[in-house]
Amino acid sequence: MSYFRKHYHEPGTAPGTLVQRSPATTSPLSMHLTDYTEEGVEELDLDAVQDCVRYLERGSKTWLQINGAVSPDTLRQLGDLFDLHDLALEDVLNAGQRPKIDSYENQLFVTAAFPMLNDGVLELVQISLFVGENYLICFCPLAQDPFDPIRKRIRQTNGRRFTSRGIDYLLYALLDYIVDSGFPVLESFGDDLEVLESELLAHPDRQTLAAIHRLKRELLLMRRILWPQREMIASAMRSEDHRIKPETLVYLRDCMDHSVQIIELLESFRDMATSMLDLYLSAISNRTNDTMRVLTIIATIFIPLTFIVGVYGMNFGNPDNPWAMPELYARYGYPLVWGAMIVITGGLVWYFRRRRWL
Amino acid sequence: MSYFRKHYHEPGTAPGTLVQRSPATTSPLSMHLTDYTEEGVEELDLDAVQDCVRYLERGSKTWLQINGAVSPDTLRQLGDLFDLHDLALEDVLNAGQRPKIDSYENQLFVTAAFPMLNDGVLELVQISLFVGENYLICFCPLAQDPFDPIRKRIRQTNGRRFTSRGIDYLLYALLDYIVDSGFPVLESFGDDLEVLESELLAHPDRQTLAAIHRLKRELLLMRRILWPQREMIASAMRSEDHRIKPETLVYLRDCMDHSVQIIELLESFRDMATSMLDLYLSAISNRTNDTMRVLTIIATIFIPLTFIVGVYGMNFGNPDNPWAMPELYARYGYPLVWGAMIVITGGLVWYFRRRRWL
Amino acid sequence: MSYFRKHYHEPGTAPGTLVQRSPATTSPLSMHLTDYTEEGVEELDLDAVQDCVRYLERGSKTWLQINGAVSPDTLRQLGDLFDLHDLALEDVLNAGQRPKIDSYENQLFVTAAFPMLNDGVLELVQISLFVGENYLICFCPLAQDPFDPIRKRIRQTNGRRFTSRGIDYLLYALLDYIVDSGFPVLESFGDDLEVLESELLAHPDRQTLAAIHRLKRELLLMRRILWPQREMIASAMRSEDHRIKPETLVYLRDCMDHSVQIIELLESFRDMATSMLDLYLSAISNRTNDTMRVLTIIATIFIPLTFIVGVYGMNFGNPDNPWAMPELYARYGYPLVWGAMIVITGGLVWYFRRRRWL
Amino acid sequence: MSYFRKHYHEPGTAPGTLVQRSPATTSPLSMHLTDYTEEGVEELDLDAVQDCVRYLERGSKTWLQINGAVSPDTLRQLGDLFDLHDLALEDVLNAGQRPKIDSYENQLFVTAAFPMLNDGVLELVQISLFVGENYLICFCPLAQDPFDPIRKRIRQTNGRRFTSRGIDYLLYALLDYIVDSGFPVLESFGDDLEVLESELLAHPDRQTLAAIHRLKRELLLMRRILWPQREMIASAMRSEDHRIKPETLVYLRDCMDHSVQIIELLESFRDMATSMLDLYLSAISNRTNDTMRVLTIIATIFIPLTFIVGVYGMNFGNPDNPWAMPELYARYGYPLVWGAMIVITGGLVWYFRRRRWL
Amino acid sequence: MSYFRKHYHEPGTAPGTLVQRSPATTSPLSMHLTDYTEEGVEELDLDAVQDCVRYLERGSKTWLQINGAVSPDTLRQLGDLFDLHDLALEDVLNAGQRPKIDSYENQLFVTAAFPMLNDGVLELVQISLFVGENYLICFCPLAQDPFDPIRKRIRQTNGRRFTSRGIDYLLYALLDYIVDSGFPVLESFGDDLEVLESELLAHPDRQTLAAIHRLKRELLLMRRILWPQREMIASAMRSEDHRIKPETLVYLRDCMDHSVQIIELLESFRDMATSMLDLYLSAISNRTNDTMRVLTIIATIFIPLTFIVGVYGMNFGNPDNPWAMPELYARYGYPLVWGAMIVITGGLVWYFRRRRWL
Repeated sequence: MSYFRKHYHEPGTAPGTLVQRSPATTSPLSMHLTDYTEEGVEELDLDAVQDCVRYLERGSKTWLQINGAVSPDTLRQLGDLFDLHDLALEDVLNAGQRPKIDSYENQLFVTAAFPMLNDGVLELVQISLFVGENYLICFCPLAQDPFDPIRKRIRQTNGRRFTSRGIDYLLYALLDYIVDSGFPVLESFGDDLEVLESELLAHPDRQTLAAIHRLKRELLLMRRILWPQREMIASAMRSEDHRIKPETLVYLRDCMDHSVQIIELLESFRDMATSMLDLYLSAISNRTNDTMRVLTIIATIFIPLTFIVGVYGMNFGNPDNPWAMPELYARYGYPLVWGAMIVITGGLVWYFRRRRWL
Repeated sequence: MSYFRKHYHEPGTAPGTLVQRSPATTSPLSMHLTDYTEEGVEELDLDAVQDCVRYLERGSKTWLQINGAVSPDTLRQLGDLFDLHDLALEDVLNAGQRPKIDSYENQLFVTAAFPMLNDGVLELVQISLFVGENYLICFCPLAQDPFDPIRKRIRQTNGRRFTSRGIDYLLYALLDYIVDSGFPVLESFGDDLEVLESELLAHPDRQTLAAIHRLKRELLLMRRILWPQREMIASAMRSEDHRIKPETLVYLRDCMDHSVQIIELLESFRDMATSMLDLYLSAISNRTNDTMRVLTIIATIFIPLTFIVGVYGMNFGNPDNPWAMPELYARYGYPLVWGAMIVITGGLVWYFRRRRWL
Repeated sequence: MSYFRKHYHEPGTAPGTLVQRSPATTSPLSMHLTDYTEEGVEELDLDAVQDCVRYLERGSKTWLQINGAVSPDTLRQLGDLFDLHDLALEDVLNAGQRPKIDSYENQLFVTAAFPMLNDGVLELVQISLFVGENYLICFCPLAQDPFDPIRKRIRQTNGRRFTSRGIDYLLYALLDYIVDSGFPVLESFGDDLEVLESELLAHPDRQTLAAIHRLKRELLLMRRILWPQREMIASAMRSEDHRIKPETLVYLRDCMDHSVQIIELLESFRDMATSMLDLYLSAISNRTNDTMRVLTIIATIFIPLTFIVGVYGMNFGNPDNPWAMPELYARYGYPLVWGAMIVITGGLVWYFRRRRWL
Repeated sequence: MSYFRKHYHEPGTAPGTLVQRSPATTSPLSMHLTDYTEEGVEELDLDAVQDCVRYLERGSKTWLQINGAVSPDTLRQLGDLFDLHDLALEDVLNAGQRPKIDSYENQLFVTAAFPMLNDGVLELVQISLFVGENYLICFCPLAQDPFDPIRKRIRQTNGRRFTSRGIDYLLYALLDYIVDSGFPVLESFGDDLEVLESELLAHPDRQTLAAIHRLKRELLLMRRILWPQREMIASAMRSEDHRIKPETLVYLRDCMDHSVQIIELLESFRDMATSMLDLYLSAISNRTNDTMRVLTIIATIFIPLTFIVGVYGMNFGNPDNPWAMPELYARYGYPLVWGAMIVITGGLVWYFRRRRWL
Repeated sequence: MSYFRKHYHEPGTAPGTLVQRSPATTSPLSMHLTDYTEEGVEELDLDAVQDCVRYLERGSKTWLQINGAVSPDTLRQLGDLFDLHDLALEDVLNAGQRPKIDSYENQLFVTAAFPMLNDGVLELVQISLFVGENYLICFCPLAQDPFDPIRKRIRQTNGRRFTSRGIDYLLYALLDYIVDSGFPVLESFGDDLEVLESELLAHPDRQTLAAIHRLKRELLLMRRILWPQREMIASAMRSEDHRIKPETLVYLRDCMDHSVQIIELLESFRDMATSMLDLYLSAISNRTNDTMRVLTIIATIFIPLTFIVGVYGMNFGNPDNPWAMPELYARYGYPLVWGAMIVITGGLVWYFRRRRWL
């Protein structure tokens, strides 16, 4: 996982320049069009950008979903067809934008961050949306379209809920989906925190530390991106753009609520992760203290004994005095001493293993 | 205690969808209606939602209290009867909402968090309130209705205080009750802090650390939920909704005051808990230092002595020289040395026990 | 010192309920009235609340000071007499309010926190003030009235300074006194910090740590209460209440200045206290390191020597070779070795005592 | 790298005083003029300030780029020619200004900080810009002009993009270039962070600590300068100065976006760097604990053994008893013991080396 | 250096009371008057306050500089002469005010903090300024007037720059001087930080810790005072007082810029000082770890060797076996062993000294 994930042009490049990105994201391009009116829903996969022209000219609402890596050429064609602003098109290519909403003359341009877990690793996929009078274009760099549930809702209700409202309701539905995708991610992070916490209180080790650090880093990344997302929704609500209709505001408010809740959860998770680092440090200090204590006790007990033993060299040995080290004259004295020493060593090793020191 | 406690729909679910929650909260449903006019108070337990219709049509004020787990069906019936907004109904089911106040056309929707201690563990129960022209519906997932004291006040004053004021006064009374319930919780946390502090300064151990961590976590959770509660009351005061009457503002201001005070207490408690973690770390360092010092002193004293003793092997022994280790030739020399060593060992063990090192 | 010091009603109690507090603060009640006009000052001790009626009816300014524990009955009488608001009266009884200013129809209600040191322990006494057209009622739970200097100023100038201005000037004088009482408290805390700092840099011990913790806690408490006090004065200045006259604003600005200065001092004191905890931790680490170093040096020097000595068992003893341990054959060899060992032990004990390790 | 990098006049110097800076930055002066109209672009190197007069008088747009160290004399000549404000000229000489935008009567004065890495060390070069009706003067203390890409864009498009817009578009192009130069710097810092992180988790040493400290310091410096840069662009957007035309605002918004993104990256990098310091501390504590454990285990095992061995002085030796230390009487007993000891020493040294302790 | 440096009246003292301060600052009083018109500059030392009356009555601008300790009597005379407000006069005496600007009817009252280093110790001298229609009175408690450079500028330009502008330009010149005096102080602190940093990375000791603490403390103090100074200048700029003329605003903006820059430097210095404390802690931990490692290695190597040696008591000695400890029978065996031990001790002492452990 890299710290710097922003695509940017060489400084000094003219604004609105469209350059082919490095082929890191080579998901194949696919275009899907969903056209709905009060009468019904029509869906088709597009081969060429121009195929959508005839849908635009009818009074219907048209949702053009473009998945995978878009080439600068395709973007330029789309730009000409829909009269999209150069700066906005540039932002579609340069992934890693802050979520934002920009009002241009002919369309609203929205970038949002779609949070998902990929093998447990957080990814924040940039979704770019153009909203015109009666069309919405949505760019998603993933090969797999995540917005199928929305499409299903359009189909199921035969488009009634969506057709009776403007294209901004579709924008809300997509944003709501993007925002709510944060909940399962946070739930997973919450589970991680609980696991780490119980590890910390039971037997913390080096892996625990690395795991806390990794989690903290992902929380930081997520917060950096989702904080402006909240602002983006807030400014969509405040915006006086005529393309966002007053009757959609109550839905955006709901979406805003969720966004704020996610931020607050993130903040408290970060606080807990920081607090866990302290806990880890305390646990290590505690353990150092424990080892010290054992060493101190054993050493302190034996040091004076060894001194006394040294004083006399234990030259008490005198075969005639039965009180003076008779062990020295016993036949198996020497092997017995070795036996005693082996038993003590084994006992200590067992004890250390049980205390997880060895 | 889990970190993530929010109920949420599968992302992409249509707004306002009501789905049966997992059966975790299976408190049985009970409905209680309190109807009051200037003339008197009427109370009854409802079996079916429809039973409250006739109370609504009179000019009286009606408080419908619904305790326990509500089924989506019941919610839908209530929604149709009172013309409640779908998004609000969804929030009633999806517990774990941030406290908020939403103005809909036909009603005000308020969610609040009711703090309580369950066996010493903090719980924040979501209370959902709908306020119409002359009715208030209050959802509480607990089996046991916590709002009996309010009902008693309505009864005692024969409803005069409540009837002479609008239904918003009942809203205030409930919110005030919810907010003030924070005080006993904080008082209990304050007591915990004091106990922990005295433990820390006397003889901190691993349990103390875990306890501070747990307390900090609960304070963090409580703050995350109660902070928006303060904002909710503030926006109720600022709101230009005609359902909140100017004469109720002075009461809401009082409630706001308490809410702010709780937040400030929470913040200072969190500061103290953080400071205690530092104190714990210092205490551990102190103890490590103490053990080190004892080891150092004893070892440092005996090391040169043992060296000297080693040098001479103590081969001074010479039966003819009364100054040269006469102990070696004493009859009970050897047992006496053993005796001395046992006494020393016992003394040290006793000393370590007294210092709580063993 | 307890963490939670707020008095509160049982949640669900009706607003404005006056209940006898627990008898913790049983300072006897005393009432003192100061009445002043351009002509002169009149002072008397009141036995009953009603005695002040005749002063109210004249055009004079009347200051009613009530010290000690007020009973709910007395409060209710005062409330009826002066038409005081129920919520305000409740706040007089429930000590531990945040400082605030509330505008009611017939009076301004102000609560302030009077900081004082009681045997070195911070106490924040709640002063409650009602300001009407030409009267001011001041409640102070202390037996001893702290506002004598103000009364003296009224008397000394024969009331001229006070009489030529409205009753709000008296309010200012009292608030100014309350705010300025923070300076000696902070001066004492500043002295404590200096003492602790020099202790820390010289020879920190466990008491130092506890003392820093205690100080930090008191600073935290003081800040929690005095921060809203600043806001209270600010909102008194901004208030459009006709009872605060424009010519008093220049004085309130001065009072505000002092309040801000106290907050800034508090904040920097807290910063220093936190920094001192770090310093303490460093000092402990330093000391551990020192002990370790001594142990390491002595042990490391003697370990190889002891090994060598062990190798030869020092069996060089050979009475015929004058170079081979002649000490063994000296008459007083053995006692001399004991002597040497006792001298070394004594020297080390003396050295450890001097370094304060023993 | 020094902490204090601001050039300032002796306090008390009259405002607008131009004094020769110390010769630290002695890059030679060079002046380059780019003049463009709808018809075409003209470029030339200037020898004397006066040479640009005739370009100013035409209706064309003129960009005067001045690189290297400017003498007070040259500044004064420019000031007279273009009627530049004294305070602004002073700021050109006193490098280390906060980025800001000042509206003077005859020109807009902008200072910006151009971030670059010089052998891995962050430098923030002050760029000063004067924007008049149809001219822009840009001061850059570097010998090498960094703005060649912009000049190329003017040339390439034959100035069309630039000539069709006002001189404020050139200002935007330069600011955009300056802001975007932050991205490669941050990318490099991000790489450093990743390297440090993996070092920390693998085998942290003293160099790692110094490197984290250095990085944190550079991030702090960069943040201190780039934070006001964001404000500067924001106030350029809000400014009602007629020299910034509404059609440029959409471009400045883009530039603002980048600026905010850089700040947010910086903040999260700083958070990570701080968190890494904690990680380092934990790693050290961990390692201390490890060494302690090994010492404890080995010492604790051998201490009782050595005691036992001492007790018997191992005087079992008795040539007649084959069970009593027959090794003592073996011919090569002594050299074999030495051999065993050398093998043990070698083994331990090898073990310590492998654990990187030696 | 004391933590609490505010002079304050006994709480309850009437506002505007002037009391002789304790004689801590007994710099002798001196008064200097600078009077300037378009025609010329006149300067004289005043003996009595009344001597300045005739300058006030002319249309000229008059700057009255009062250095040293002012007695309450002198202040009262000045107050009567210039009609200065009581509260302002009190603030002149009670040093340690927050920088502020107060608009009174007849004059503007400004207090500012003049930062200077006295033997390396930060001092923040309170400068009090009264600005009337055509006079400025400046109080400075230092014996030595710091504002000579300003006076020189008035003289040099023969007062033209100053006379063509109002008295507010003199106010600006003084404030600018006061603010800019922060730069050399910060430069010195920056140097201190660099020295401390290189000490920390090379060989940190107890003095380093105390020095960081002292620096942090001074930075904290400076920030506490200079933060309101920034606000003071900002409110001078916003102020609608007619005594501050619009043409002076551009200069005040410059002064504000410097003030903000100083605050930002202070903040980043504080951040670095805090980070250095962490660095110190890491360095100490590192060192503890190092000592531990050496002890562990040496002890661990010798412990088993000593055990083996103990087992055999090294009773191999057998004069007949040339392989069995022939050293015991060599003539100079014993002195040679002593020699070896002395060499080892010397070597270790030398090694410890080189590593700075001894």
